[in-house]
Amino acid sequence: MDQLAIGVDLGGTSIKCALVSRQTGLIHQASRDTEAARGPDVVLDNMAGLIKLMMERAEGQVLGAGVGSPGIINWDRTTVSDPPNLPGWKTVHLGDALSARIGTPLRVLVENDANVAGLGSAHYGAGRPYDSFIMVTLGTGVGGAIIYQNRIFRGATGGAGEIGHMTIDYEGPVDNHDIPGASEAYLGQRFLSAHAARMARQSPASSLNETILQRGDLEPHLIYEAAVQGDETAREVLQWAGHKLGVLLGSAVNLLDIRKMVVGGGLSAAGDFIFDAARTTIRQFVTHGLREGIEIIQEPRGNEVGVLGAAHLVFERVDDAAEAVGD
Amino acid sequence: MDQLAIGVDLGGTSIKCALVSRQTGLIHQASRDTEAARGPDVVLDNMAGLIKLMMERAEGQVLGAGVGSPGIINWDRTTVSDPPNLPGWKTVHLGDALSARIGTPLRVLVENDANVAGLGSAHYGAGRPYDSFIMVTLGTGVGGAIIYQNRIFRGATGGAGEIGHMTIDYEGPVDNHDIPGASEAYLGQRFLSAHAARMARQSPASSLNETILQRGDLEPHLIYEAAVQGDETAREVLQWAGHKLGVLLGSAVNLLDIRKMVVGGGLSAAGDFIFDAARTTIRQFVTHGLREGIEIIQEPRGNEVGVLGAAHLVFERVDDAAEAVGD
Repeated sequence: MDQLAIGVDLGGTSIKCALVSRQTGLIHQASRDTEAARGPDVVLDNMAGLIKLMMERAEGQVLGAGVGSPGIINWDRTTVSDPPNLPGWKTVHLGDALSARIGTPLRVLVENDANVAGLGSAHYGAGRPYDSFIMVTLGTGVGGAIIYQNRIFRGATGGAGEIGHMTIDYEGPVDNHDIPGASEAYLGQRFLSAHAARMARQSPASSLNETILQRGDLEPHLIYEAAVQGDETAREVLQWAGHKLGVLLGSAVNLLDIRKMVVGGGLSAAGDFIFDAARTTIRQFVTHGLREGIEIIQEPRGNEVGVLGAAHLVFERVDDAAEAVGD
Repeated sequence: MDQLAIGVDLGGTSIKCALVSRQTGLIHQASRDTEAARGPDVVLDNMAGLIKLMMERAEGQVLGAGVGSPGIINWDRTTVSDPPNLPGWKTVHLGDALSARIGTPLRVLVENDANVAGLGSAHYGAGRPYDSFIMVTLGTGVGGAIIYQNRIFRGATGGAGEIGHMTIDYEGPVDNHDIPGASEAYLGQRFLSAHAARMARQSPASSLNETILQRGDLEPHLIYEAAVQGDETAREVLQWAGHKLGVLLGSAVNLLDIRKMVVGGGLSAAGDFIFDAARTTIRQFVTHGLREGIEIIQEPRGNEVGVLGAAHLVFERVDDAAEAVGD
């Protein structure tokens, strides 16, 4: 029999919500402004409103809701603490807060947003062929998740996968956490845009200079579009980024012996302009015995893997409960 | 009731073997030359001889033998392929090869040598207080193992923990696998000795210069001894090494959220001369949310953790079998 769950992607600017079928994936979707600045009560009201909407549309019992969230998640997946970009939260027990607002007890599980994206990719996205893979999300920051034997590898306290803060040069430029040579200090949006602007200044013929004048900034999709149009400087920037990505993933492969990599997030749209360089570089940074079978692929489902993975937290928990009673 | 197993540490120069009690640890130990150059048949004869000796000394049933080995281990832990420093091996099924020589069927499990050291530390050594930790072995090379929830984290194919090949500087000096900035290219014995010699040449007053003249080389224990005697250059060398170790472990903590580190191998004898710098550095390379509770400690049991961990492979397998039949 099919199973239904609700997936929620709690972001600093918007909340995305979906009704998900275990067998067929997305059934309904909706999203709205987070209204983060109005504090946790309003944000929780907004989440509860979307969840209620999905429950009304469900033809059958909803087993619960999974939430992908920024911030620190406890081991039991019940609370969120100090989510960045969501002021005033401290620690919130999501099951209690949402059940009270919906007016009926709801099973709620919460997990780090990068981790649910990995789980969504594992069960509904590009990660489906692999039992184990490393998920990288190239967005404002560089997020990561380790999917091991179809589960999230959580580490000792639930905080594993902080690939964006791994260093590739101990004397390199610092990221937002002042970590020298952190991969985010190359691949994070702000850092990559700044690098592209520097490269453009040295190449007056590049169309990127015109783009900077028009747009005031070089968002990654603008670099990608210039690369597609044949701009050499834009292509060099993306190769440079791919090289850094390959170095980073090479280190991760050495530590984990997980040789499949799924890359999502805005910058992943640049596809082979980045991945070709990453694929060449990674082989150079992996020990001989682990070089066979390395693959770096794109996650084309974008933000959808977030809500799908969040819903899958619920399916997983139902399986575990069934197994525990010998079902 | 107590359980008995045999642990074997198969090295390029010597084979170490021990009879191990699950409750009390080491009962008997023996070792002998590997005679690696004489090929696999002689090496297997030598292993079988030591195992037989231990079986004769056992007061009670021996449940099997675990072997820590260099080379590539298959997922089932039955075969070793192409172990470095052991010429002519190709792929050997250790259970068949040893049972035939001993004259009775023996349960044999084989695992990567760095991994069994980690497992030994987890159950009999400095790692005992921790469910999860990263084991680093600073010897000729830099070995690593991930102990997660008291088990070896093996990755997708059994090759996880190659921490010595993780890069800390993508433009740094290369290791034996031509990987730029690999941690082994700083912390491996040959590389560290060369660095110490360079530092000594710049410091004519350092006692290391005299040591080089007398010994022709600067093995890590000689650097450590000079540091204990107050030699400033030797202390700087060890601080330099500790800094690199801290960078490396910081990256690993970000990826794994495992914040306990146990360091063994020859160089670990230098203790706080290395660890103090590592402890200061690691905090700088770990994302804010994972900085609490970081510990770097020494494994004082030395090579013993190898044979102990190898024997523990057998105890673990017995537990799993008992669990599978609902015992």
